[in-house]
This record gives sequence, structure tokens and C-alpha cells, in this order.
Amino acid sequence: MHVGKQSIKFEKPPIITHTFSGVGPKEAQGPLGKHFHHYFEDEIIGRETWEKAEAEMIKHVITRLLEEANLTSQDINYILSGDLENQINATHIGLKDFNIPLFGLYGACSTMGEAMGLGSILVGTGIAKKIIAGASSHNCTAEKQFRYPLEFGAQRTMTQQWTVTGCGYVLIETEGEGLKIESITTGKIVDFAIKDVTNMGAIMAPAAVDTILTHLQDTNQQPSDYDAIITGDLGLCGMNIALDLAKRLGIDLSNVMHDCGAMIYDHQVQDTHAGGSGCGCSASVFSSYWYNQIIEGKYKKVLLVPTGALMSLASTQQGENIPGIAHAVSISAQ
Amino acid sequence: MHVGKQSIKFEKPPIITHTFSGVGPKEAQGPLGKHFHHYFEDEIIGRETWEKAEAEMIKHVITRLLEEANLTSQDINYILSGDLENQINATHIGLKDFNIPLFGLYGACSTMGEAMGLGSILVGTGIAKKIIAGASSHNCTAEKQFRYPLEFGAQRTMTQQWTVTGCGYVLIETEGEGLKIESITTGKIVDFAIKDVTNMGAIMAPAAVDTILTHLQDTNQQPSDYDAIITGDLGLCGMNIALDLAKRLGIDLSNVMHDCGAMIYDHQVQDTHAGGSGCGCSASVFSSYWYNQIIEGKYKKVLLVPTGALMSLASTQQGENIPGIAHAVSISAQ
Repeated sequence: MHVGKQSIKFEKPPIITHTFSGVGPKEAQGPLGKHFHHYFEDEIIGRETWEKAEAEMIKHVITRLLEEANLTSQDINYILSGDLENQINATHIGLKDFNIPLFGLYGACSTMGEAMGLGSILVGTGIAKKIIAGASSHNCTAEKQFRYPLEFGAQRTMTQQWTVTGCGYVLIETEGEGLKIESITTGKIVDFAIKDVTNMGAIMAPAAVDTILTHLQDTNQQPSDYDAIITGDLGLCGMNIALDLAKRLGIDLSNVMHDCGAMIYDHQVQDTHAGGSGCGCSASVFSSYWYNQIIEGKYKKVLLVPTGALMSLASTQQGENIPGIAHAVSISAQ
Repeated sequence: MHVGKQSIKFEKPPIITHTFSGVGPKEAQGPLGKHFHHYFEDEIIGRETWEKAEAEMIKHVITRLLEEANLTSQDINYILSGDLENQINATHIGLKDFNIPLFGLYGACSTMGEAMGLGSILVGTGIAKKIIAGASSHNCTAEKQFRYPLEFGAQRTMTQQWTVTGCGYVLIETEGEGLKIESITTGKIVDFAIKDVTNMGAIMAPAAVDTILTHLQDTNQQPSDYDAIITGDLGLCGMNIALDLAKRLGIDLSNVMHDCGAMIYDHQVQDTHAGGSGCGCSASVFSSYWYNQIIEGKYKKVLLVPTGALMSLASTQQGENIPGIAHAVSISAQ
């Protein structure tokens, strides 16, 4: 059911029954290391190029997710997925052997929210019984594509974030044991006229706040209705901007807000500056840490808000603003 | 309602109430020229770069579509859209001022099928009342990105196609006058191990046939149930391959098949070799010529099957196969 300006509330909430996450060695060494389902010992994952490695990571994680759920790819109605590579190359190469009808998505680092949102619509309306939703990023494919070749060794500003090598996929079903998706809010493009490619947090913070506030208004809730509001990858800088912006708009999120990008690395030790980023960040952290926190009863109800910066190398080279987008998914214990 | 392996049949078919197409000068000079709603006199469209021009084209077409429908962007629940630029840059820049919740898609040249498919699910299930779905491509942004800079003047093989400068957007509503979307079939990735970037038709033909045959089987129909089966941009070579492939699988499509890529240019005169391509090809040709043919009663029921080649510059440089995908939308007079 459509509620408010841009939200859907499910009469029969879809259930996230299984999740699987896979990350690289740096993420495994971080504070959430023990929570991920699988880690790869290096970032090349037995292949010849970073792009092939990212595709291999996706293939591995989907295979393991199906095994965990005791399903074959034939049982899955749709897969909704995207990544940061040009033409979502990793997704296509990684998924091509599974033979599952595909909706390819591009929402930058908000892709996990877009995939879970659309996936829960497919399941919540009865169009599909079982879908897989997820997203992936790889530090080495993203850095060479959006910024500089790794070998160049460019100095990074303190506002910059570290693209996560990781992916997370969730299985959403009409029935089963797991977590409920109560509602979703689909984001709009928010342009605060920022052009600084080294400050993704500042770009995404206004979009995160816009989607969170719209979600609360549409669903007639307060921040206190959530045990946690979890943004995707605002990082340390972006999170502060978001808290400040929300406060100026009359909403205090300081007691409830977490950010996957701020959580995934030990910034003092791991040289990750403002935190983690990439659509694999919220995808892997939600699918592992947050999913299990709710399953274990430590949190009851959370709002996951993956956030994306909408840019390409061409758009930044041509002096375009970098707008942001954020999609929210409200998830609770059964 | 989910039918067969990968199709949805709508109990209350969504209605395509308005369409708008915009193309470049070469498309306007082609045999379908008089059918397009708008053409731009040059490919730079008053901007400084091809990328800004493509975004401007999208902005113009959405603005005109809303005007035609006598709506404002506030009336639209969602927009589903994509293009061929890295990180679907044209879509983001072109749409950012409209303030409409966005699902960004990447399905290569199949994007129009993906957008109309997902859009009709949103409307057909009652999740949304009004959505806009569409896709865009621009010859100059695509050629420089996927192949060579235009200034390089690379010789083109006879199997190569000409990326369409054009876009088409459709308004899909729960009620109104227009055309019905009866059913959709969502495609899977089909990999025939082709690596030739100069033969997109050969790459996409197996995916087109897979989706068409699955659609007919899922919905219990014959080719003769359609007045036209319209593929996206197989072009002259790909169309022959698709007809041949379908025949070997026992289905004769020769009386019913059309291809937007084969129709959009006069190949003898316009030097377009195997035909048009790009996700703007099926988007602009369906939104103008085909939509009006059905409205005028010349065709009653068609199957639109936009087709995509899943590649990036990195994937082809790294020797990956280029798989294909195709999404089908069954459209009929009210």
C-alpha cells in the first residue's frame, strides 16, 4: 500500500529468510570481521584482473546463499542486483551462470536499498515467491575507475573514504523465519551542488536526511520508533553532516543513527580516513552484522538507508554537480 | 499473477496513456522521421558536451511528456529509467530537477523493456498510480565510451550498428485511455560465448529468442497471437540470426517479426550498416511509431522485446564473453 509521498507499507510483510556476505581481507581485519559469512584471503580471488575478481566474489556469495537456503537457482523468481563498475559489469559476469531472471540496477552506493525495495515489492505484492537482492563493490575496480590507478599511489584527503571490497545478498520470501520488511521509502535525487569527489559523505548526507525524514513522515513515526537508523556509507564526515542537517530540520537522530561506512574499519589503525564506502559496504554489513543483531534480539526494528553519490568520471570531469540518493528499508523482528 | 517460468500476467492491465520521443537529426532524417514527437537539430542540443546534451534531451522529453499528460512531476509516483553512459550519468543529470522517486536501471539496450516491465508491476499491483518508464542513448556519448573517439574516424564493419541518439518515455497509469500491458516476461542472461564487439546483433539474438519463446510458452500463446513481435535493436544481421535460431527450435517468427534497429535508418542511404542500436532505439521507436500504429488500429497486439548486450570496455578488453538479455512486454489495444 502506498503511504504518504513516497513510501510503501506492506500488508503482508516480505521476510528476509537468509543472507550471505563476502568481503576482502581488509574488511575481515576490521572490527566487524568475525561477523561476515566469508572472507577472501586476497583481493584478486584467484583470477587475473580485479574485475574478474569482483565477478568471482559475487558468484561465490550467491552460490553460498543458495546452499544456506537449501535452494537451487531454479527456485528463485528474480534477482535484483548492481555494482559500481561501468555497465554493472561485475553483476553480469558474476550472475550469468545462474539462469535467474535479472533486473539490473544502478543506484551507486544506494543499490542495496534499491534492490531490497524493489525486491520486497515483488514479494510483498505476491508477484514473486522468492527473490534475491544485493549489491557489490571492489576497492580495486572502483578506485581505478572513479579516481586513480592504484599503482599511482595518489594521496587521499581526510574526507575520503575507502571503497569496500565486499558484497551482500539477501533472500526475500513470502513466508519463512527471518526478519520482516515492514515498509520502504524510495529516494529522489537530491542535489546540494557539491562537486568535491573527495567528499562523498557531504554529497550523500542531504539525500539520507531527505529519505529518513520523508520515511518518518510518510509512515507517521518518530526516530524513537527505531532502535537504529543505519545509513549506508556516509562515513565519519557525512554522518556528522547528516546529524547536523536533521537537527536543523527539527529532528534529533543522534541517539539512533549508525553508519555502515563508519563501522566497517578501525580508522585509527587501518588508514581508511573518513570510513568505508561502495555499495558492497551497506550490503555486506547489513547482511551480516545487522541482520544477526536483530535475529539475536539485540535490536528489534531498524531503518536501513543505503546512500549513493550519483557521479561518473565524465560527469565530474565536465564540472557537473554530484547529486545524491538514498533508499530506506524498514526491517524488524518477526 | 506469476505465470510459467518467468512471466507476469496482469489481472488489471496497466495502461500506457501517453508517450513522448525525442531524437537527433540522423534519426529524424530516417524512414520513421515524421513519427517522432520531437527532433533536435543537432546532436549537441545547445550544450557544451555530448554527455550534457544527452541529459538535456532526457530533460526535454520528460518535460514534454508531463505537458502532454497535463501533469506535474508531483503527480508521478516513480520514474524508472536508464541509459548507456557509465553510471547512467545522463539519467541522473537529466532527471535531477524533477524530484520524482527514482529506480535507476541498467539493462544495456534492453533497458526500455526492464523499465516498462518493472513499471507495469508497480502499477498493475496497485503500488503506484502513475509511473514514467523510459531509456535513452546518444550516438556520441556511446561511441566514445564503448568504441573509439568520434574524431578518430574508425572504419566500421558491416555487422556494426549505429547507436541511436534518442530517447522515449511512457506514462503508465492504473486507468485512462491508451494501450494495455497484458503481460511481461523478464529475461535471463544468455551467453553464447560471443566476443565480437562489432556484432551486437549476434550477441543479442539468442537472448531475444530465449525471451520470446519463454513468453509464448509461459502465456500459452503462438506467434500468430501477435500482429507483431518487435525486437529492440538486433539490426539486420541479428534479426536474421534470431529468425534462424527460432526456426531451429521449431518456431517460425518470419511473418511477425520486426526490429526497431532495422527500421530506424535507411541503410542504403544513411551509412548505418547493420542498423540502429542503443537503448534509445527501441525506446524512441516504440514510443512513437509502434504506439501510434496500435492506437490507430493498424496493429492490435504486439510483443515489444528490447534486447541488450552486456559488456563494458573493461570486460571486452579482458576477453570476457559478451552475454545478452531481453525483456518482453505484451501490449494491446484497449
